[in-house]
This record gives sequence, C-alpha cells and structure tokens, in this order.
Amino acid sequence: MKVSVLGGGRWGTALATHLGRLGHEVLVYERNEDVVKKINEGRHPYIQDITLSNVSATQNLKDAESHSDYLVIALPVQAIREVIKHIDLSKKVVISASKGLEVGTYKRVSQIVKEIHSSAVVFSLSGPSFASEVSKGLPTALVLAGEELEELRRVRDIFFSENFRVYLSTDIIGVELGGALKNVIAIACGISDGLGYGENARASLITRGLAEMVRIGISLGAKRETFYGLSGMGDLFLTASSSQSRNRTFGFLLSKGLKPEDAFREIGQVVEGAHTVKAVKKLSGELDIYTPICLAVYQVVVEGQDLYKIVRSLLLRPPKEEFENL
Amino acid sequence: MKVSVLGGGRWGTALATHLGRLGHEVLVYERNEDVVKKINEGRHPYIQDITLSNVSATQNLKDAESHSDYLVIALPVQAIREVIKHIDLSKKVVISASKGLEVGTYKRVSQIVKEIHSSAVVFSLSGPSFASEVSKGLPTALVLAGEELEELRRVRDIFFSENFRVYLSTDIIGVELGGALKNVIAIACGISDGLGYGENARASLITRGLAEMVRIGISLGAKRETFYGLSGMGDLFLTASSSQSRNRTFGFLLSKGLKPEDAFREIGQVVEGAHTVKAVKKLSGELDIYTPICLAVYQVVVEGQDLYKIVRSLLLRPPKEEFENL
Repeated sequence: MKVSVLGGGRWGTALATHLGRLGHEVLVYERNEDVVKKINEGRHPYIQDITLSNVSATQNLKDAESHSDYLVIALPVQAIREVIKHIDLSKKVVISASKGLEVGTYKRVSQIVKEIHSSAVVFSLSGPSFASEVSKGLPTALVLAGEELEELRRVRDIFFSENFRVYLSTDIIGVELGGALKNVIAIACGISDGLGYGENARASLITRGLAEMVRIGISLGAKRETFYGLSGMGDLFLTASSSQSRNRTFGFLLSKGLKPEDAFREIGQVVEGAHTVKAVKKLSGELDIYTPICLAVYQVVVEGQDLYKIVRSLLLRPPKEEFENL
Repeated sequence: MKVSVLGGGRWGTALATHLGRLGHEVLVYERNEDVVKKINEGRHPYIQDITLSNVSATQNLKDAESHSDYLVIALPVQAIREVIKHIDLSKKVVISASKGLEVGTYKRVSQIVKEIHSSAVVFSLSGPSFASEVSKGLPTALVLAGEELEELRRVRDIFFSENFRVYLSTDIIGVELGGALKNVIAIACGISDGLGYGENARASLITRGLAEMVRIGISLGAKRETFYGLSGMGDLFLTASSSQSRNRTFGFLLSKGLKPEDAFREIGQVVEGAHTVKAVKKLSGELDIYTPICLAVYQVVVEGQDLYKIVRSLLLRPPKEEFENL
C-alpha cells in the first residue's frame, strides 16, 4: 500500500527504508532540495550505505498529502505545527514518530495534530530505535499507541516485520511522554559519564530517573506501566548509555566545562532534552512532584549554575526508602 | 563499629574497603591463604590500585563469627550453605550481598540462611554495583531489603555515605530475585551483541526481559515495583550492557560458536545465569509463566540447541500488545 512520510531526516528516512523494504510505496516530503534529489536517486546525503527501494521524495507537501491516507510524521517537533497547518489531515491516519514537547506550549505531538485537525486519527510510534540500525534492517522493537483499536492493528500490520516488532498500547500520553522525558535523564547521564563517575552511577541515574519520569507521567494522565516498556525504560536505556545520543553528548560536553550555548553549537542539532527540562521544572513546581535529577539538569542547563555544586547537592540528599513509606 | 565480611573476593573486598573507609573495624573471612596475607598487608592479589584501611583478614571462620554481630555474606552462592553451617548466626544480623539461586534447591540466599539459622535477622543488599567502582569510591546506589524495620535503618546507617547511597525496601524476595534473574537476560544480551544485532535489539531485550523477570517475581511473591528499582532494572542495565559482566560475556562467547562448556572454561568463574535459567525453566513450566527470552537462553545453554534457529524463532513470535489485552 501507499504511505507518506513527512521529514527526510535520519529517522524519517529509516522508516521510509523499512516501509519500502516491505513493499509499500513510500513518498517522503522533505523541504531540503538536495535531500529530495538524493532520495530520488536511492541514496541519502547523510546516511551512509543506504539503498532505497520503493521510496521517492518530494518538496511538494500537497503531493505527500494526496499520496496516501497514512502519514508518518518524522519532523523536528518544533517544525510540526508549521508544516501540518498547510495540509488537511481531517480524514487521515497520522502516525507520529517524532519525540519531544513543543517549546512554549509543552504539548505532545498528538496534541498538536489534534489541535489543528481535530478529526485526524493519531498514533504514536516510539521505542528504542537508532535510525542507523533500522536503516540497516537490524532487529528493533517499538510500541505503537493510540485509541482506535481496529485502526491501531491495521497500522501495526503495515509496519510489522520480523526485524521490526511492533507492540500495541492504548496509552498514547505515556508513550509520547516517555520519548520526551528520557532526554532529560540522558543529559544527566552524560554529565555523570563526563565526570568519570562510572557505570554504577549511570545505572542508578537511569533507575532513579525513570522513577521521576513515572511520577511526572502519572500526574499527566499516563499509565505507570507504559514507562516500564519500550517507549520508557527501553528508550531511556538506549539514549542514556549510547555515544550515538545527542542529549547524552550534550551533558558530556557540559561536564567538560562547556557553557550550554557552546555545547549546543558544538552539537549543531536540536537537543530536545534542554527544552523538555523547562516543561518538567514548571510541572514539578505546579504539581509538587519530586524530581531531583531533572531539577539538577535544569539548574545546570537553564540557570547555568555550577555543575559540581549541583552534583554534590544531589549526592548529599538524605537517605530514603526506594518506593514505599517505611 | 565492628563488621565481619564472609568472602574476600572482589565484591567482599569492595564492601570491606567501603566500610573501612567509613571508620568501621572490618574483619574479612577468606579461605585462600594468599588473599588473607595480602589483605593484611593492605592490598589484594587481584584488585589493582587498592589500599585497605581498617580492614584485616582471617582464615579462621570462628574469628569472623566472634568479631561482630553484623556479618556481611559475599561468598559465591553455591558455597554459602557449607560455610555458614559451621557458625552460629542465631543472634546475628546477616547482610547478604551475594546474588544468585542455589543449584538444585533454587533457594535465595536469605532462605538458605534462615533454613540453617532460623532466628537470624537477614537483609539483602543489591543493586547496580561493579566491585571495581565501589573499591574506588565512585558513586553507587543500592537497595537494602528486609523486614525488621528498626534494624534495617541501623544497617543502612552503617553502610550509608555520600558515594554509597542505600535505599530501603521491605521486599527481600523481589530484591534477591532481581539480582539472580537479571543474569539470564544478560546472557541473552551477550548473544545478541555477539551476533551484531545492535543497540536497539539490546534495549528491547532488556525491556522485554525485565517484563519476564516481573512475571516470574510476582508468581513467587515479590512486589512488581521492586523490579523497576535498583535491584531490578538498575542491575539489569549494568549487567546486560557492560563488558565487565561475566554473564553477558558468556552469551557473547556462545554467539561466536563456542559450546557452553568451552565458554565456561574460557571465563573460569561461576556464570550464575547458566544455573538460574534452569530454575526459570522449571518455574515457568510449573506456573505457566510466559518467558520466551529465558526459555531461548535455556534451549541454547542447557539443551545445546542451534543458536541461530532459536534466535530466529524468538524474532518470529506473533505480534502482541505490550502490557494489556487489547
């Protein structure tokens, strides 16, 4: 069948490659002329060793709109609103593959889509998935979340393959929040790794960080269990431990003495966690949620406080129970 | 205060080092004469760059028994029964720092201790903690579990420091099972890594593997949340992703074509997960628990089935929901 993909970056192209491999007829919308040209030659300007089949690209958004009733969104979160307001998604099935919260509004991607096209059917596809590995066809498992069950299964069947396992969930809030919040914890892990704190420290940051993600998520209506799945701990684990992760690299650079603005420049791409942490700070204040790791990241990244002082105060917190009130 | 540690291996020595650094007077019981001699010189034969203070060692088990009312067990699980039956722990506080199940009986360490000394007060200390990092004083967070709350807090205070954070739990079953079961998943991750399946695959194995650990744990009386803490996912992250892990290395060697017996020989130390997987196989059959990853490990490690065939059948499982029944 036919599928449109909005966004010809690494992740959009990886998904297009996968769908093309399954025999679907994929059309990628991409603003950048050079990317469009390369994709139409079966290649990609910044993905090595890729061969695309059944995939073409266009700079014309309307072509992507009319190509299929199934549209995958793989755009930077901050670009989504601007792009989708030029097309009509009211009778479309939209699969969001973008992770993050909109700056200023703190909205999840499905909320942005619904705000503009209230009758669109929206799903979120998330989980531990480096684009480079999906492009190569290496085994990957993801979770697909949404509320319309029959359509949910249909979308699953479009994507499912032996090496691209898709699990279903009805908790779209949790799935989207997992993909966004994990980036904040990944920054903390990058700082810890950069300070030479070791693997024990990172494992405990991931674990205690996930507990913070759960508390935030529950207060926003997500299901606890979602955070213990692929879009929560799975993706957190990947992002927080791999050198392929931008957010972790950002934290690493901070620990080496770079100012946030210099680290952003060095990375040269959006560091979603640096935006998301602002939403977390606002929410944890308003809703009285205990998020010491996220707040420490905020103090370093946004307030520019001394990193050593913040890390030290985090380690000096008084002892407490792991889950219960003893 | 005074503390005895049974076992002068890497983990026992790391804990002794930590306790000695806090000013406690530590006596280590160790069978090996060379290790005892070196510890008494402030060193250790197979831990580099270590300087022990306030730590001495003995080959005389009775000395360790009379040295303190607080005994830390850091022995190989299979050796515990034989050692502790020669001393009287009936009025002692026992802190188990050993992870694994007893071969044949499938008992947890606290069960072994209680079976022999029914009035001993037993706690379990577990979590993501490579001995080498604890020896160096790098930040580490663990969970201490047990039922006697006042004594639990006292033991926490003995161990607690800025760089050795101890969280409390009352779920000793969950804490002990997390430390044991994670080794089976680590073998699976080693196999996946060895086959070149990448980081996406490992992250999903860890996530889906934890779901199996939860199902097994709950059926044995553990609390679900414990597996989402330091002794569950925290330790699983560490063990399944680090090249320092024996169980992961074992899986890695299998994927390179070594027979299990040759991989055991190559590693030269106990691979706890290869024992634990037998208990899991038995339990999941008896209690009808869905554990496809653990069973695949069993088929490869115990039954010697063809690794590629098993991995392929794991990937070909039909699609399903992540948590719920949709």
